[in-house]
Amino acid sequence: MDKVKNDATRHRYEEVAAFVMELIETGTLPPGTKVPSLRTLSRQLHVSLSTTMQAYRVLEDKGMLEARPQSGFYVASSGPVALDLPEKSRPPMRPHRVSVAAPVLQMLEYAADPTLQPLGCAIPSPEMLSAGKLDRFLARAARLKGAEFNTYGTPSGEPYLRRELARRAIRWGQTLSPDEIAVTCGCTEALSIALKATTLPGDVVAIESPTYFGVLQVIESLNLHALELPTDATSGVDIASLERALARNAVQVCLLSSCFSNPLGSTLPGAKKRQLLDLLKRHEIPLIEDDIYGDIHFTEERPRPFMALDPSADVIYCSSFSKTLAPGYRVGWIATKKRLRQVLEGKFSTSLCSPILPQIAIADFLSSGGYDAHLRRLRRAFRSNIERMLRVIDEAFPRGTRVTRPAGGFVLWVKLPGAVPSDGLLQQALSENICFAPGKLFSTTGQYDDCLRLSCGHAWSDTLEQAVRRIGALAREWRD
Amino acid sequence: MDKVKNDATRHRYEEVAAFVMELIETGTLPPGTKVPSLRTLSRQLHVSLSTTMQAYRVLEDKGMLEARPQSGFYVASSGPVALDLPEKSRPPMRPHRVSVAAPVLQMLEYAADPTLQPLGCAIPSPEMLSAGKLDRFLARAARLKGAEFNTYGTPSGEPYLRRELARRAIRWGQTLSPDEIAVTCGCTEALSIALKATTLPGDVVAIESPTYFGVLQVIESLNLHALELPTDATSGVDIASLERALARNAVQVCLLSSCFSNPLGSTLPGAKKRQLLDLLKRHEIPLIEDDIYGDIHFTEERPRPFMALDPSADVIYCSSFSKTLAPGYRVGWIATKKRLRQVLEGKFSTSLCSPILPQIAIADFLSSGGYDAHLRRLRRAFRSNIERMLRVIDEAFPRGTRVTRPAGGFVLWVKLPGAVPSDGLLQQALSENICFAPGKLFSTTGQYDDCLRLSCGHAWSDTLEQAVRRIGALAREWRD
Repeated sequence: MDKVKNDATRHRYEEVAAFVMELIETGTLPPGTKVPSLRTLSRQLHVSLSTTMQAYRVLEDKGMLEARPQSGFYVASSGPVALDLPEKSRPPMRPHRVSVAAPVLQMLEYAADPTLQPLGCAIPSPEMLSAGKLDRFLARAARLKGAEFNTYGTPSGEPYLRRELARRAIRWGQTLSPDEIAVTCGCTEALSIALKATTLPGDVVAIESPTYFGVLQVIESLNLHALELPTDATSGVDIASLERALARNAVQVCLLSSCFSNPLGSTLPGAKKRQLLDLLKRHEIPLIEDDIYGDIHFTEERPRPFMALDPSADVIYCSSFSKTLAPGYRVGWIATKKRLRQVLEGKFSTSLCSPILPQIAIADFLSSGGYDAHLRRLRRAFRSNIERMLRVIDEAFPRGTRVTRPAGGFVLWVKLPGAVPSDGLLQQALSENICFAPGKLFSTTGQYDDCLRLSCGHAWSDTLEQAVRRIGALAREWRD
Repeated sequence: MDKVKNDATRHRYEEVAAFVMELIETGTLPPGTKVPSLRTLSRQLHVSLSTTMQAYRVLEDKGMLEARPQSGFYVASSGPVALDLPEKSRPPMRPHRVSVAAPVLQMLEYAADPTLQPLGCAIPSPEMLSAGKLDRFLARAARLKGAEFNTYGTPSGEPYLRRELARRAIRWGQTLSPDEIAVTCGCTEALSIALKATTLPGDVVAIESPTYFGVLQVIESLNLHALELPTDATSGVDIASLERALARNAVQVCLLSSCFSNPLGSTLPGAKKRQLLDLLKRHEIPLIEDDIYGDIHFTEERPRPFMALDPSADVIYCSSFSKTLAPGYRVGWIATKKRLRQVLEGKFSTSLCSPILPQIAIADFLSSGGYDAHLRRLRRAFRSNIERMLRVIDEAFPRGTRVTRPAGGFVLWVKLPGAVPSDGLLQQALSENICFAPGKLFSTTGQYDDCLRLSCGHAWSDTLEQAVRRIGALAREWRD
């Protein structure tokens, strides 16, 4: 251990990681080069193979190294992407009646079309979810427990799954009782029930702008209005704007992302989350938070949800396993300390209870410990996809294109320069069997027609890369 | 074949059945006696064993014979029950804001309590559903198709299941395309989506009185009002009353049972169904029909749903497999020829799509042909339960008790004489570990406090019989 400074407060693998990081940052190991093999570096530094392996994994998690199968570790080759971030959004600050149903259903039809390159809907590809193990748990649950569970469950869901969910929440510092959780049919039902539990028809919901079109659809179907708030592509919603809206009693409930918002990938920093919670508390306005992308963080630590920051706040937390494990299982959940009764009434009147065996299978999977290893693989894969996509956009899209740099999730938000309408672009792309999500779907205000969202949920391939390049080329043609 | 008149237009088994029926009706074979063994009667009538068996099964289906395991066939011993039917209901004809959430959630908690005798919620017991075969289909689907289906489905549901559902509808004379069907998370979600597709907050829904509390809960959660219509315990809703309400524009949508309504067990006869459809058409009012009990008919033929009677009518048909096969799978569906777009938007905004593998398992089960044999067993079992329950009520409940005689389903509606409050009765029953559903849950008007609903969804047992007798005894004590 002669070349590595020995520091009593650090683990050996951290020292090895720091050593390699220095080689990268000083340019000794430039982007794209192969780093020393595990065996070589271990010998050089007089540490065990497993210590070096741990160091490389840490650097991979930080995005500094990339593992290439059958080849070894390389310095991440993306380098800084030159494109600017999108500017903070400036939606007109008045409530809007929502009406996105027709184009949204159209998008879903595109998503179900296997002949289209899947850059449209934010759907992880089945092979990336590799849920074979989960399916085996479901098969086992059906065989062994089918008869026992062939009955209505309670609206709150299976206690076994609720216990596992409460246990997981400890990781982000949240103390939850299984009795504060209700299982839902995915995150969409969770958000719908949460809005029902906090609003009356005609009420105004404050949301990020742009925001996921599914949220807009839920708001529309409950006869609510949306107030879109200016939102920064990195640091999330603008609190001062929300404060002004609250001051004139223009908002009855807030619905925000916990982190890695869809489509911006933005995350409100912890201190601002607390500030927002205090603000809402003063105005006695409930907060619904959508944490569906929370487990897909590229940072070392998972950002803490609002609810974990202040257990006394009036928060309804919504999430699901649809982005990380099994969209087809439709298992989501709500956690709330203040609104459980309304939530259970809402669940009963929406779908009575959730299917039982999929809940048992997921609880078995969580309890087996398999979920965390799966998440580690998935985060690396999504992160690598995002970086490759960023590089291709950088190369192929028109000068002046802006693009987000999400710290989690698997979508990118692209703002095209000039007046390129993404709707027209989509029609051209579709004629070449390429799909993406046009910007206007993400707002009630008619904004974002010059934006589009690209999903990085599918395994990277040459065909996919060519599809992204083709969108860029089409956008350049519009410009010319 | 000397003793049986030979009629060229009848099958032999029908002639044998007619012969035995005459023996019963003339009193030659009184209630409760054993009928001749298959072998004996076959020899006497010079017909094959299988012909006699078929004849006995027909009589069993008509409720004239009962098969007792290891013993043979007996003349059904129930005989006519002396109790009167409940009078036609007379709810106050004005819209009511609905508020039943708290006592309904309480009922669900009782339903989940295994220490209580399960006469409360209308839940078929797992052993009567004997869904082992279905569970094996689910296990198989998870093993073989798990990866393929680990993605979001479309809001309309799996095409395979929709094809099977469309195929089944042919049995009741309904021509449906799979593209006119949307799969839901049980019948509750179907009803919720159907109401969303046809109403705005504050609208008035015309319903039967009394009606299933789950329907009331859905109406409440969508901020609608209920107009309860007078309803006959046999022949269903009073059309003249509906006509008067429509004439003064007091109703925006109708929600009625297709047959065997819960809790009355009433069915609008075909001619009256057509009359009602014409009336609604004149007023351009949509009809939502709930056919969840339709497959549990004690009559030879299944009553036809409204939708089958007039394909041009504005009908949203709702049903599910929860009462006949698998409440825990949460597979329901909507069929509609006029409102599909609104229904799909509703499904997307309520839960995006339904879990896929349970849909595949049920489609496999339907396609295997196993469902019909299962239904035949189930109908016999529910019918036998209903008859035993009626007999016990006849013997044990106070003089003046009225009770329904449903031709399908598995619930009985009991009206107690005098002013016995079923709420108070329930508290006493609960203290003796017996549960039933108190009448006031089934209305928004505060009526039916002297009524109660008994579920016959569990296999008959001495303990269950004692529980019913005990409720009767408690009711008699209130009277004294």
